[in-house]
Amino acid sequence: MTIETLGLNAKQASRLMNKMTATQKNACLKQAARALLDHSEAILAANAIDILAAREKNMPESLVDRLALTESRIESMAEGLTQLIALEDPIGEIVSSTIRPNGLEICKKRVPIGVVGIIYESRPNVTADAFGLCFKTNNAVILKGGSDAIHSNLAIVKVLRQAIADCGCCEDALQLVEDTSRETAKAMMRLNQYIDVLIPRGGAGLIRTVVENSTVPVIETGTGNCHVYVDDSADIDMAVSIILNAKTQRTGVCNACESLVIHRDIIDRALPAIASALREKHCELRGDEAALAVVPDMKKASEEDWGTEYLDLIASVKTVSSIDEAIEHINRYNTGHSEAIVTKDYDHARKFLDEVDAAAVYVNASTRFTDGFEFGFGAEIGISTQKLHARGPMGLKELTTTKYVIYGDGQIRK
Amino acid sequence: MTIETLGLNAKQASRLMNKMTATQKNACLKQAARALLDHSEAILAANAIDILAAREKNMPESLVDRLALTESRIESMAEGLTQLIALEDPIGEIVSSTIRPNGLEICKKRVPIGVVGIIYESRPNVTADAFGLCFKTNNAVILKGGSDAIHSNLAIVKVLRQAIADCGCCEDALQLVEDTSRETAKAMMRLNQYIDVLIPRGGAGLIRTVVENSTVPVIETGTGNCHVYVDDSADIDMAVSIILNAKTQRTGVCNACESLVIHRDIIDRALPAIASALREKHCELRGDEAALAVVPDMKKASEEDWGTEYLDLIASVKTVSSIDEAIEHINRYNTGHSEAIVTKDYDHARKFLDEVDAAAVYVNASTRFTDGFEFGFGAEIGISTQKLHARGPMGLKELTTTKYVIYGDGQIRK
Repeated sequence: MTIETLGLNAKQASRLMNKMTATQKNACLKQAARALLDHSEAILAANAIDILAAREKNMPESLVDRLALTESRIESMAEGLTQLIALEDPIGEIVSSTIRPNGLEICKKRVPIGVVGIIYESRPNVTADAFGLCFKTNNAVILKGGSDAIHSNLAIVKVLRQAIADCGCCEDALQLVEDTSRETAKAMMRLNQYIDVLIPRGGAGLIRTVVENSTVPVIETGTGNCHVYVDDSADIDMAVSIILNAKTQRTGVCNACESLVIHRDIIDRALPAIASALREKHCELRGDEAALAVVPDMKKASEEDWGTEYLDLIASVKTVSSIDEAIEHINRYNTGHSEAIVTKDYDHARKFLDEVDAAAVYVNASTRFTDGFEFGFGAEIGISTQKLHARGPMGLKELTTTKYVIYGDGQIRK
Repeated sequence: MTIETLGLNAKQASRLMNKMTATQKNACLKQAARALLDHSEAILAANAIDILAAREKNMPESLVDRLALTESRIESMAEGLTQLIALEDPIGEIVSSTIRPNGLEICKKRVPIGVVGIIYESRPNVTADAFGLCFKTNNAVILKGGSDAIHSNLAIVKVLRQAIADCGCCEDALQLVEDTSRETAKAMMRLNQYIDVLIPRGGAGLIRTVVENSTVPVIETGTGNCHVYVDDSADIDMAVSIILNAKTQRTGVCNACESLVIHRDIIDRALPAIASALREKHCELRGDEAALAVVPDMKKASEEDWGTEYLDLIASVKTVSSIDEAIEHINRYNTGHSEAIVTKDYDHARKFLDEVDAAAVYVNASTRFTDGFEFGFGAEIGISTQKLHARGPMGLKELTTTKYVIYGDGQIRK
C-alpha cells in the first residue's frame, strides 16, 4: 500500500474516530490490552526474527536489548493501554467561552488533532504506547518504526487492529508503514494533505532529519543536554544528592544531567564531594581549568564537551563566577529540556527560573522528574523541546487541538 | 547586515525583552504610537517613493491602494499600538499547577516565545501591528516585508526603533530585513538557531513557499475557502441575510464566504431569493446542474470552482441531498477556516459543529465574525488554519509559550 493510500485511509478513519465516545474508546483499549496478552506468543515469535537479524548484523547488545520483547515487556505494554482507560478524557472540554455583545456565543472546544504520524526507532513497545495515546484522544495514527523492529511491529499492529475491529471500530485508526525505506519516510514527511502533525521519537539524528525534511508540522522531542548548577549558596549535601540522582539514576535518558556548572566560591568544598560520589558510580568527569585545579585527576573538557549529550556515565564540569555567567552558559549550550539550580538564595532561585530558557526549570530538585508520570499526567508521547503547541512532557491534552464552536441566531457583521 | 546577525541580535534582545515589566512595555508602546504621529511626514515621504515605483511597474490600482499610507492610516497604526496598552498582559500567568505527593510544586507558567519571524506582503501597516503584538508579549521580532513596501517599512521601523531606544529599551527587539531577496527569505526560513516561530502573512503563494521551505516551526495562516450551508430546515430570510453579509460585506478577506451549499429540498424556495439578493450586489454565481435548474441564468460551476477562494464578487452553488453530503463536500474542499450552517434543526446544528473540520464553525451566523476584534481578543497577528499551537484568530496569548517552573527542597527520583 502506498503512503498516500495510508494517508487517505487515516483521514477517513479520523472522521469516524471523531464520533467515538469515551465508553467506546475505553472498551476498545481494554480489548486491545487483552489481545496483546492473548497473542503474546505470536508477538514473541515475530520479535525473535528481528532479534536474530539484529545479531547477524552484529548489533551491539545494548541495542538488541532495546529491541527485545519478553512476556513481562508485553505485559507492560498491555498495562500501559489499561492505564489509559482511567485517565481523564480531554476531548470535548470547553476551554473557554464568551457571549459577545451581539449575542453570539463563542466556545473554544477541545477536539482531536485528526491524523498523527509518528516516526520512531527500534523500541517496539512504542507501537502500543503511541497507538493508545492517539486512540484515547480520538486521533487516527500512522506509525513508522525502524526496519530492525519491522516483524515485531507488524505482529503488534495486527493484534491491535484485530482488537479494534472486534469492537466494531475502524481498524484504519491504526496503520503501520510496512515499507521502512528512507524514500517512504520522506514522502510521509510531505503528506500535508492527510497528516496533521508528525512526532519523531528517537535519537538526535532522526529528529534532525524530520525537522529538516518535513513540511507537515513537527513537534520536536527529545534531546536533553541538561545542567545542574551549584550556586555559591548551595547546601552541598543536597547538591551531591541531586547530582548523583540526575547523573546516575539512569544514564541513557533525555532528562539525565550531562553537565555540572559550579560557582567558583563553593567549588573548593563542593567539587571534591561531588566528584567522589560520582566516581563511586564510575562516572567520568571532564572539567575546565578551575575544576582541574580542585580535582586534578579528571580529563580536561573541550569546547565540544559543553554541547554534548553523553547519555553515558560522563559529565562535564564548568566553573562560573556568578549566576549570570551560569545562566549564560546554560542558555548557550542547552537543548531546552530540563535545567536545575541548587541554591538557598531567594533572588538566585527566581532569576534562574525566569531566565533559563528550557521546558522545565528546577530549584533544588533532580532533572530526572521531567516525565509524564512524574508530573502526574500519566503516559506521554514524548518530551517537547520546542516552543510551539507543547513544551515539556506531552500527555493526552497535547494530542488535541481546539476549534471555535459558535452559536448564533442570525447575527451578521456590521 | 546578514540574516544570521539579525538572528543573533534578536536572540540577545529576546533575553532582555524577557525581563521587561508590563509598565515598561506599555510606556514603550505609548511612545511608539506618539512617534508614528510625530514622524508621519517622513513616513509618508518614504511611502511616496514606493507608490511611485509601484505605478512605474504598472501595479494594479487595487494593490497600490493596499500599499498606500495616508495621515489617517498612520493614525490607525498609532491607535492600534495604543489599544494594545489596555489589553490584559498574558505573560507570567500560571496556567496550571500541582503539588506532587513528594512535595514537588510544579507550575506551568506563560512566557514569551522568544524570537518571532514574520514574512509578509505589501501592506506597510503590518509592520507596526506585528511589532506591537510581539512587543506586548515580550518577544523580539524580525520582520521581512515585500520589496514593494521597503521604503515605507524602513521609515516605520526607524521611527519605532528610535521610540524603543528613547524608552531605554533594546531596539533590536524590532528588526527589519532590509534585503528583500528570495535567497535571504529562504535563509531566514532555516534560521532555527535564532528564530522560534515563523508566521507568514499574505496570499496563498507566500504561505505555501514558507510551509515548503521552512525548517523553523511555522504557523500557517490565512486562506479561507469558506462555505455557508443552507439546511432543509433553514429560515430563508435568515439564510439570505447571512449569505449576503458573508459574501458581500467585504470580498477580499479570508473569512468571506466563497461557496453556498444548499439542500435539495429547500433550493426551489431559497435559491431564487439568495440569487436575487446577491445579484443586486453584482455577485456572479456558478452553480451545479440542480442549481441551474432553479436559477437558469448562472454559469455552470467546474470542479475547480469548488476549491477556489475567489476573494471577489463570485460564489459557487453546490446542491446536496443531506447534511452528511454537505459536511462531506465542505470537509473535502475547505481550507479549515470558517464554515456556517443555517438551520432550525437541533440535531443538524450539533452534527455540523461536531463534524465540520475548521477553525471556526457557526450555526446561524455569518462567517465574517472570525476575527480577533469580533471574538473579543483585540488585535490579531493572523488567523491560523492549522491545528498545532493556535487555531483561529491569534491574539496575544497565541504569541506565548509555557515553561514548567518547579520548586523543590531536595527531591530526587527513586
